[in-house]
Amino acid sequence: MSAPQTGEAASPLQICRIMRPDDANIVGNVHGGNILRMIEEAGCIVSTRHCNTQNGDRCLAALVRVEKTEFLSPVFIGEVAHVTAEITYTSKHSLEVQVKVMAENILTGAKKLANKAALWYVPCSLRNVDKIMEVPPIKYASAEQEEEGRKRYEAQKMERLETKARIEEVMPSPPNPEDPPKEKHTVGFSQSSLIHLVGPSDCTLHDYVHGGVTMKLMDEVAGIVAARHCNTNVVTASVDAINFHRKIKKGCVVTVTGRLTFVSNKSMEIEVLVDASSLVEAEKGKYRAVSAFFTFISLDKDNKPLPVPALKVEGEDEQRRFDEGKARYLQNKEKRLSDKTRRQ
Amino acid sequence: MSAPQTGEAASPLQICRIMRPDDANIVGNVHGGNILRMIEEAGCIVSTRHCNTQNGDRCLAALVRVEKTEFLSPVFIGEVAHVTAEITYTSKHSLEVQVKVMAENILTGAKKLANKAALWYVPCSLRNVDKIMEVPPIKYASAEQEEEGRKRYEAQKMERLETKARIEEVMPSPPNPEDPPKEKHTVGFSQSSLIHLVGPSDCTLHDYVHGGVTMKLMDEVAGIVAARHCNTNVVTASVDAINFHRKIKKGCVVTVTGRLTFVSNKSMEIEVLVDASSLVEAEKGKYRAVSAFFTFISLDKDNKPLPVPALKVEGEDEQRRFDEGKARYLQNKEKRLSDKTRRQ
Amino acid sequence: MSAPQTGEAASPLQICRIMRPDDANIVGNVHGGNILRMIEEAGCIVSTRHCNTQNGDRCLAALVRVEKTEFLSPVFIGEVAHVTAEITYTSKHSLEVQVKVMAENILTGAKKLANKAALWYVPCSLRNVDKIMEVPPIKYASAEQEEEGRKRYEAQKMERLETKARIEEVMPSPPNPEDPPKEKHTVGFSQSSLIHLVGPSDCTLHDYVHGGVTMKLMDEVAGIVAARHCNTNVVTASVDAINFHRKIKKGCVVTVTGRLTFVSNKSMEIEVLVDASSLVEAEKGKYRAVSAFFTFISLDKDNKPLPVPALKVEGEDEQRRFDEGKARYLQNKEKRLSDKTRRQ
Repeated sequence: MSAPQTGEAASPLQICRIMRPDDANIVGNVHGGNILRMIEEAGCIVSTRHCNTQNGDRCLAALVRVEKTEFLSPVFIGEVAHVTAEITYTSKHSLEVQVKVMAENILTGAKKLANKAALWYVPCSLRNVDKIMEVPPIKYASAEQEEEGRKRYEAQKMERLETKARIEEVMPSPPNPEDPPKEKHTVGFSQSSLIHLVGPSDCTLHDYVHGGVTMKLMDEVAGIVAARHCNTNVVTASVDAINFHRKIKKGCVVTVTGRLTFVSNKSMEIEVLVDASSLVEAEKGKYRAVSAFFTFISLDKDNKPLPVPALKVEGEDEQRRFDEGKARYLQNKEKRLSDKTRRQ
Repeated sequence: MSAPQTGEAASPLQICRIMRPDDANIVGNVHGGNILRMIEEAGCIVSTRHCNTQNGDRCLAALVRVEKTEFLSPVFIGEVAHVTAEITYTSKHSLEVQVKVMAENILTGAKKLANKAALWYVPCSLRNVDKIMEVPPIKYASAEQEEEGRKRYEAQKMERLETKARIEEVMPSPPNPEDPPKEKHTVGFSQSSLIHLVGPSDCTLHDYVHGGVTMKLMDEVAGIVAARHCNTNVVTASVDAINFHRKIKKGCVVTVTGRLTFVSNKSMEIEVLVDASSLVEAEKGKYRAVSAFFTFISLDKDNKPLPVPALKVEGEDEQRRFDEGKARYLQNKEKRLSDKTRRQ
Repeated sequence: MSAPQTGEAASPLQICRIMRPDDANIVGNVHGGNILRMIEEAGCIVSTRHCNTQNGDRCLAALVRVEKTEFLSPVFIGEVAHVTAEITYTSKHSLEVQVKVMAENILTGAKKLANKAALWYVPCSLRNVDKIMEVPPIKYASAEQEEEGRKRYEAQKMERLETKARIEEVMPSPPNPEDPPKEKHTVGFSQSSLIHLVGPSDCTLHDYVHGGVTMKLMDEVAGIVAARHCNTNVVTASVDAINFHRKIKKGCVVTVTGRLTFVSNKSMEIEVLVDASSLVEAEKGKYRAVSAFFTFISLDKDNKPLPVPALKVEGEDEQRRFDEGKARYLQNKEKRLSDKTRRQ
């Protein structure tokens, strides 16, 4: 994580919290969704604070994108999670925040890196949520560092445009319980969805849902899909880049649906779709707010990865999604290998 | 609510709590589900405490039934809810707890009766959850009082047997989003379901879900169904008797589904079905744990009831459920009238 | 706050969090109890971490005392609370942690000091909660600093012994709902209690309730008492020293009772008593776990203090408690004046 030289307003922020039983599954692994929520809270504070260091309307930073992130080691109940957030790039209307999560066992003193993430925010005026404000520039340690930031900025901008098309896709059909029960290990067998009525504590001062709250719900559904597929202890291994295309307002009902797209020997890829609809203004209809791919692994009692049952693919659509998932899987694998080689 | 003379252990219990923003919907009405959860917590404490006043295994009181209950006046954020619970009848293996909820506006001092409920518990041994313990008898103020209790006991026993059959019924089919969108005001249009992964704070010391937690989830789904049907502010008006046939263990996934069964001029009846399945012991399959009928009304800005759009019934099954709902509606209406006459 | 030179293990810890609607009352003031809970979480992390920097049993730091603390300025929804905790003294078996809370408005950049507190912890072995471990010594910047710490240590030790007697006192009789309603502005009129069934997320890895959770409940009850007395927006102004005499275990029922003891022109003193009892081992009886005095003030719309209605004292006991409260009030007032003079 590169550390540009910044003014006081953009100084890094650290938050920490003891992990409680409610943050974890029954074997004590903290849900990835809770880590994502803490990451986003830190990102939101540091970027809102930075964007208000200038004159003009007061504004809140809204999450628009999270880059692909990996859960490097599990976090357990009783450990302290330390989340550090730092602004690493600013464009005219957006800023990048890099966040690192360290898990500390306060009984043994052992620390480990649990997650590293990069988030993109845009400042929305408090008076008019649709007005995007300008972002005060940060100072960089070197011209090289600024140039690297600009490359990351351009890359994510491209990707956000590309995924905009995908997001318009139709919802998956939920299992119909009057049908005969689905065969085990098919996509339909483990597909799951939840609905959530957005409450005040889910929201920012704008009355829009925090990106971190949405990610926590997405991780929850993905975890249920994965557990239904392999009936073991499952944990979040990574999350592909997530784009937040449309905001979700207080009083909406959010429907979060997860379905398996690809399964390798030791991992499961789950596509998660988030649809929102206003309860009171029903005429506005349901809209796709976010979608993302979560990768889960299955662990034995010693937290070692277990083999995952193969996915029984049915029909053309499932096959196409499986092939696309496989391509993502192979690409990530290759990238991991090349990163490793480069580091040696 | 009759108050029998009881030993010290069975003395009434009083709890109070300020209603918070997250307890309420966006216009500030506290969700009926939160009231039900508080009622059950008080009932659980008073009956567990009573059943442990004797020698033998330590035990926890498990909720087996809630009698029909009405929400007499709305409760708002910032008000203090006072819940009083008292044991009013004991049989050999079960006990009845009567609970009263008063809402107090601490700014004006105004108090109003918000709810009255009767709950039935059985004591389960902490060593072996399937072993039902004996209940220490309470003292009654008069033989008449005891006799009335016995009648209530016999009546609920009969009803629990009767509903056992109904509970085995199949799940309603959830809306299939690849179908063309459902027509407004049909049953399918508003049908909703949520899934919830049972966490540690949902559970008793036995690691079984508190009855109050289940009722809160049921009310949440019913509220979404009602709001989808009429797109206004909706509140819980009453809940028909609920029988808790089977327990739900920590680590289960709970699926809660709600669908409209009957709509009168100013009320909606929603059937809510709760199915549980273990994530880890999938071979045990899904089972129906609870089902109940919730009645909701729609309110305008001054909390006055609004007319409700008529329900478009499709097919034989929906018609049968509508007719059954109408019968329940007319029966309740008649009962309310005769109660009123008797009181005059 | 004096900052002794310490080893790496005793380095200060900072936690921060955005204040949400559920953290606050209906006019947006964050409850003092939530601030106390964050203070205690920071204190628990920093002291547990320090006590495990040596060989021997792993241990958890248990809160035994909080010194008198004042809420210097209100905190609002949307602000970020920064809590900094630092170990400032170590005796053989206990340690002092000083904690500072800054509230930051991330929209305007304004920061203000919200609270300063000093907490005492003792390390309890994870294997045997009754075994108190030794505390590794910290390094002090000067001999004078160490000497000041020793004085604070001796002073609190004396006070803890003295209050031990007070804690054994009988519980106030709860309002009997069948009695005629109490007259307004009497002690009985506003007396309130709540019960809470201790759940897993309330507890440490030892399965004992976090001191911060208990303080949050105490503040909640005190706030209800104060609001009932004056029917306005009330906030916590200060909390007298709190001693945690006995631990509270998971599965206990906690009864928290608050009653007015003294009322000045612009403040109310509320005594809060915490009694715990095991639900299943009722024969062990109820015991007093904690007691403390909370001072509340009443605020108008511009957060300016309002006059408080006089307290109608009835009977000898109430008069004695009123006189004792008045003595505490005058003593605190004098202390504030002399502190002010000294600083000038």
